[in-house]
Amino acid sequence: MKQKIKLGMIGGGEGSFIGPVHRIAARMSNDYDLVAGVFSSKAEKSMTFAKQIGIAKERAYPNWQTMLQKEQQLEAGIEAVAVITPNHTHYPICSAFAQAGFHIICDKPLTNTLENAKKLQQELEGKSQVFCVTYNYSAYPMVKQARAMVADGQIGAIKQVNLNYVQGNLAAYHPSEKNSWRHDKSKGGASLVLADIATHAFHLGEYVAQIELEEVFAELGPSYKQRIVDDYVSCLLRFKNKARGMMWVTNCAAGAEHGLSFRIFGTKGGLEWHQETPNELRHRRIDDFEQILTRRKGNKLLPLANESVFLPYGHPEGYNEAFANLYKETARGIRQIKNKESLQLPDGFPGIEAGVRGLSFVEACIKSKEQGIWIRF
Amino acid sequence: MKQKIKLGMIGGGEGSFIGPVHRIAARMSNDYDLVAGVFSSKAEKSMTFAKQIGIAKERAYPNWQTMLQKEQQLEAGIEAVAVITPNHTHYPICSAFAQAGFHIICDKPLTNTLENAKKLQQELEGKSQVFCVTYNYSAYPMVKQARAMVADGQIGAIKQVNLNYVQGNLAAYHPSEKNSWRHDKSKGGASLVLADIATHAFHLGEYVAQIELEEVFAELGPSYKQRIVDDYVSCLLRFKNKARGMMWVTNCAAGAEHGLSFRIFGTKGGLEWHQETPNELRHRRIDDFEQILTRRKGNKLLPLANESVFLPYGHPEGYNEAFANLYKETARGIRQIKNKESLQLPDGFPGIEAGVRGLSFVEACIKSKEQGIWIRF
Amino acid sequence: MKQKIKLGMIGGGEGSFIGPVHRIAARMSNDYDLVAGVFSSKAEKSMTFAKQIGIAKERAYPNWQTMLQKEQQLEAGIEAVAVITPNHTHYPICSAFAQAGFHIICDKPLTNTLENAKKLQQELEGKSQVFCVTYNYSAYPMVKQARAMVADGQIGAIKQVNLNYVQGNLAAYHPSEKNSWRHDKSKGGASLVLADIATHAFHLGEYVAQIELEEVFAELGPSYKQRIVDDYVSCLLRFKNKARGMMWVTNCAAGAEHGLSFRIFGTKGGLEWHQETPNELRHRRIDDFEQILTRRKGNKLLPLANESVFLPYGHPEGYNEAFANLYKETARGIRQIKNKESLQLPDGFPGIEAGVRGLSFVEACIKSKEQGIWIRF
Amino acid sequence: MKQKIKLGMIGGGEGSFIGPVHRIAARMSNDYDLVAGVFSSKAEKSMTFAKQIGIAKERAYPNWQTMLQKEQQLEAGIEAVAVITPNHTHYPICSAFAQAGFHIICDKPLTNTLENAKKLQQELEGKSQVFCVTYNYSAYPMVKQARAMVADGQIGAIKQVNLNYVQGNLAAYHPSEKNSWRHDKSKGGASLVLADIATHAFHLGEYVAQIELEEVFAELGPSYKQRIVDDYVSCLLRFKNKARGMMWVTNCAAGAEHGLSFRIFGTKGGLEWHQETPNELRHRRIDDFEQILTRRKGNKLLPLANESVFLPYGHPEGYNEAFANLYKETARGIRQIKNKESLQLPDGFPGIEAGVRGLSFVEACIKSKEQGIWIRF
Repeated sequence: MKQKIKLGMIGGGEGSFIGPVHRIAARMSNDYDLVAGVFSSKAEKSMTFAKQIGIAKERAYPNWQTMLQKEQQLEAGIEAVAVITPNHTHYPICSAFAQAGFHIICDKPLTNTLENAKKLQQELEGKSQVFCVTYNYSAYPMVKQARAMVADGQIGAIKQVNLNYVQGNLAAYHPSEKNSWRHDKSKGGASLVLADIATHAFHLGEYVAQIELEEVFAELGPSYKQRIVDDYVSCLLRFKNKARGMMWVTNCAAGAEHGLSFRIFGTKGGLEWHQETPNELRHRRIDDFEQILTRRKGNKLLPLANESVFLPYGHPEGYNEAFANLYKETARGIRQIKNKESLQLPDGFPGIEAGVRGLSFVEACIKSKEQGIWIRF
Repeated sequence: MKQKIKLGMIGGGEGSFIGPVHRIAARMSNDYDLVAGVFSSKAEKSMTFAKQIGIAKERAYPNWQTMLQKEQQLEAGIEAVAVITPNHTHYPICSAFAQAGFHIICDKPLTNTLENAKKLQQELEGKSQVFCVTYNYSAYPMVKQARAMVADGQIGAIKQVNLNYVQGNLAAYHPSEKNSWRHDKSKGGASLVLADIATHAFHLGEYVAQIELEEVFAELGPSYKQRIVDDYVSCLLRFKNKARGMMWVTNCAAGAEHGLSFRIFGTKGGLEWHQETPNELRHRRIDDFEQILTRRKGNKLLPLANESVFLPYGHPEGYNEAFANLYKETARGIRQIKNKESLQLPDGFPGIEAGVRGLSFVEACIKSKEQGIWIRF
Repeated sequence: MKQKIKLGMIGGGEGSFIGPVHRIAARMSNDYDLVAGVFSSKAEKSMTFAKQIGIAKERAYPNWQTMLQKEQQLEAGIEAVAVITPNHTHYPICSAFAQAGFHIICDKPLTNTLENAKKLQQELEGKSQVFCVTYNYSAYPMVKQARAMVADGQIGAIKQVNLNYVQGNLAAYHPSEKNSWRHDKSKGGASLVLADIATHAFHLGEYVAQIELEEVFAELGPSYKQRIVDDYVSCLLRFKNKARGMMWVTNCAAGAEHGLSFRIFGTKGGLEWHQETPNELRHRRIDDFEQILTRRKGNKLLPLANESVFLPYGHPEGYNEAFANLYKETARGIRQIKNKESLQLPDGFPGIEAGVRGLSFVEACIKSKEQGIWIRF
Repeated sequence: MKQKIKLGMIGGGEGSFIGPVHRIAARMSNDYDLVAGVFSSKAEKSMTFAKQIGIAKERAYPNWQTMLQKEQQLEAGIEAVAVITPNHTHYPICSAFAQAGFHIICDKPLTNTLENAKKLQQELEGKSQVFCVTYNYSAYPMVKQARAMVADGQIGAIKQVNLNYVQGNLAAYHPSEKNSWRHDKSKGGASLVLADIATHAFHLGEYVAQIELEEVFAELGPSYKQRIVDDYVSCLLRFKNKARGMMWVTNCAAGAEHGLSFRIFGTKGGLEWHQETPNELRHRRIDDFEQILTRRKGNKLLPLANESVFLPYGHPEGYNEAFANLYKETARGIRQIKNKESLQLPDGFPGIEAGVRGLSFVEACIKSKEQGIWIRF
């Protein structure tokens, strides 16, 4: 039996959406024991929540500094930490835990500024720890299939990349939104829409198309006068191989639900995927009928996709399975390191570089909007 | 913190599809510790597999009889057992564990014969244990929403019920299929298609429409001469309120994936749901445009549905979440009993009656086919 | 230039849905001049309507008998007649015009009784006229493609045929409905739902699957006590090659729109088509991903389909184009006869036999319901 | 009976896709007699084709100048002319026919340059003729419904406009394409993709959203080195009310079919429409479930949409019906003028202004690409 990896968690307590997702993902993977944590910036709330979810009292910490110090001293202390805190705290937390040798699963965006992201990247250089940035949408089997098909040449040379993330959770303006850290630029980052969701779309685009973005021209801003953060970004994209693209990302599309999707076209055909129906990948072909690819494990999917499937086709998977794939892949990497094997993360695994690249994109968009020009990336 | 319920498992070992589903469901619910089990009818295989999934050596049993005997003697023995074995063993196992006072989660069909199902029902009469038959498709939020809408009168008096379960896993004939217990009538039951999947469709129909089937006329048989079990059934249905219906269930639809769906119509409108896209419920209305209902937790769904949601809308859920709902609901019932509260299972929770009713349906279909007449149900 | 065929029309005047469809179809085909007609059983209304649509005064007739007599005497009289009248009048009209040598386009059902249908068939024997029964749904390109694929063996031996026509135009009961000829059994036929729409579904099934129905078992009736005609039929079907099937046809599905569809499965795969999105044909394959076939003229469709396409792919066609295909095909046949060429109607063209077969199906269903047994067809 | 309008046609002969569409549209409308025409720039080909489609010999002309001269002299000469020629000939033809008092139906783009478009507009000033630019996609009932809903305030203040026209007819490069007038900038206009299809998308956006574009930033070019014309354009859009938008238009999306669609969002909800499934309009609502609007004539659609419906709901309409709507609306206007009534074209009817605006958009995009800046519109 594979020994469980001892996991600590920072953030994701009472009222969090993504906290439970991390914990379910860890349990679905069956690779972790969540044994320690800090679940609120308020010590008392942290302790209460930890108790509710069954963390032993002595390992429910008032703050991450204490957790770091104490767990380091334990013989069977945590091996990995999940960082689910407001963006501006990612850097100090990750930096400290990284230097102490822990494996890290950190929510995107990697940090609140590109500067911090790059510092963290430097600090990690040469270290043999797994660092996972939760670009969870790239962990859906059909997204992996898309990546594998592009790599396999089935789409030909990529010509066009279209990325959408059109959701509606900020469709109406509420004065109370100012109380959220996401709406405070010093915490969430300079641009809510870019940090919060455009980083996902950007990562998805490069993950699938496997061509690097070279230049961006962006329109950016809020949709309501009273709103202090951006809820809309649209960009024109130029890639290294002369491919072109667009991105439309907003939190302010009234009535929309999630709305993350990609459409790419190459010289041989195209691929289209929508996160809301994630078990289908539409494959358009220049000289034949369109195909609907599904999770046919062991049959027609390419290995990268097949390995990430939980259930036989026809039995729908969803958001939790994709998130759990990141936890599984991270665990596999951790075990390889523990076993002194060479680290073999799956192709495209979202590590620190992908995190830094996300912040580069954020900064390029902001600069483009400010200067009204294409920004080299 | 809620204390975990100690769970044993019988069946679902090496090569099983549904075993891992049960274990993921238990972990997703966060309500159970899987602490004991028998994972094969062959003792050695059972022990090996138990070790792989982290069951303590002393609680990995060679057979269910031993497990029953030993766990009863433990102070902290299992409280509930999941029965994931071939159909013909459901009765003896459930009967023994039920008499010993354990809570039971048993795969459908409840047993291999109606006779056994009824015996088990009698044995359970008056007992205060939770018995769950894994009609997991009825545990999807949007299916619960359909039930709640019908109960709420939003569809009017039900007039038509159309049920499909059109899958393709037996689309080709393979001589080796005879080696499977499912293809052995003494084990799987008199009719593969009826026992294996039509029971799901039948349960789904009564669960949603909330009217009892009264008469059935069935066509039934295999699609290949060499096949010894049925892979096709189609039925005409008459319900108690004069509603009519149809069912089309087959394992032999080449190229189809899962294909479970319902369409019902009442005097005010209709509902349509497809398991392959489970997060949508189409609501047709007699005097207005069609609506697409989704998992809008806390907003527009009725309580029965809202309570079963894991994630915010737009973040797709799937098969695992629905299965986990059964585990969560069972756990809630077990805790009520442990806490001497009155047992409050959710409306429509699939218990022993639903299991018996499934076998009644199987027998009625077989009889109808044999006699060429409508069979009163 | 191809000379226009001179067309007369009986029925389809003020308030008719299908009258304008016939006229648009004739104009779309560009093969006809509508030069004479009777547009109401009331002479005055007929004349008024004829004037409105530009029929010369002297060829706007008070009744069909007069039209027959007069047009026969004209040198440039009509060559073909479209019969769009209540079902019980189809026989006398078609019989008279057939005997007088006219080509006929007659709405389905061919007649109100099987007896009349057979009489008409006998009368037409040996005659060299084109007789078209407007089974218009079989004239969609993607339906023709389905037929051609089955004939080509791409689906393998057909095993299952599922037919639906689930519409809602009689979802509510209105006392005034009794005033419609469709609700008068002496005019519309013994069973509204069977005559009006099930004949379409039945024809579509045999057209696509190309296997003959052998036995039927039917459930049939109205959905409201006050309603005097059937609005619901469901059947189990047995075909000559041992294939099985089902049919669900109703006018009483609240909120449904049109709802005609087929799903067939053979040993190699399956085909699915929905009239409401007629430009797509789903092709499931036993060993590969599903394909979405569209009207790719000149490229991938089989000839039978390609010949019936109006527009390049991506430019949606609809109901009118399918109807116009029947007019085009009829005109081609008429011209062949006029040119003394051998008559070459397209494969599967719906002639008198298809009309008779529809009535046979109606009678078999009624008999099955009355006797509660399978009826040999 | 309404008297037919005598129609002449220029262009649209042998091998043309859009010629037959115009003729079917004219016939479907039942408002026109096509009595004269020039069907090729080569006189002989024109005469041959005219004969094929039944134009009287004496009214099949060798060129448009002759047709103009001769038809003016006839007592019963044409009243309207359809201009279906290469873009660079639109201006001289329309100018001449307009000055001679004819009604004109002219294909988009209105002309090959903005300069010519404006000249034509000036020439038409004060004239009482109907001028229709065939922005046919705006004539679908569900597009009209979208416009009417926006006007009715059902979507709230428009915030975002997303326009796509992603087709694949130039997905591969063929050396022979240089022989087409569309690939000759002196004929088709400075930018193929802009003139040919982006003008449609642009018109659709302003037609539905009813807010004027104010600024555009565009990326533009060919996708193959050898190709001399643009096949790709993407733009960022700024509208007068501070709404923002994007446009993605290409002829080079391998495997795509037609791909015209819009998604708009306002403060209350959003609308989405795809030309390939034109009978559905998705209506997202900020505080309720999504609705699927269909052509429910006389019931739930707003008048602008209802008036343009041919068939009852459930009976799909397509491209031909939308085109025919333009012909019907033009005919209605012509008759109003003939009857000395005040001219009442339907709200949003695409006249000369819409044509000029299309060319303004083309020029703005080209300028933006050249200068790398936002262009005020």
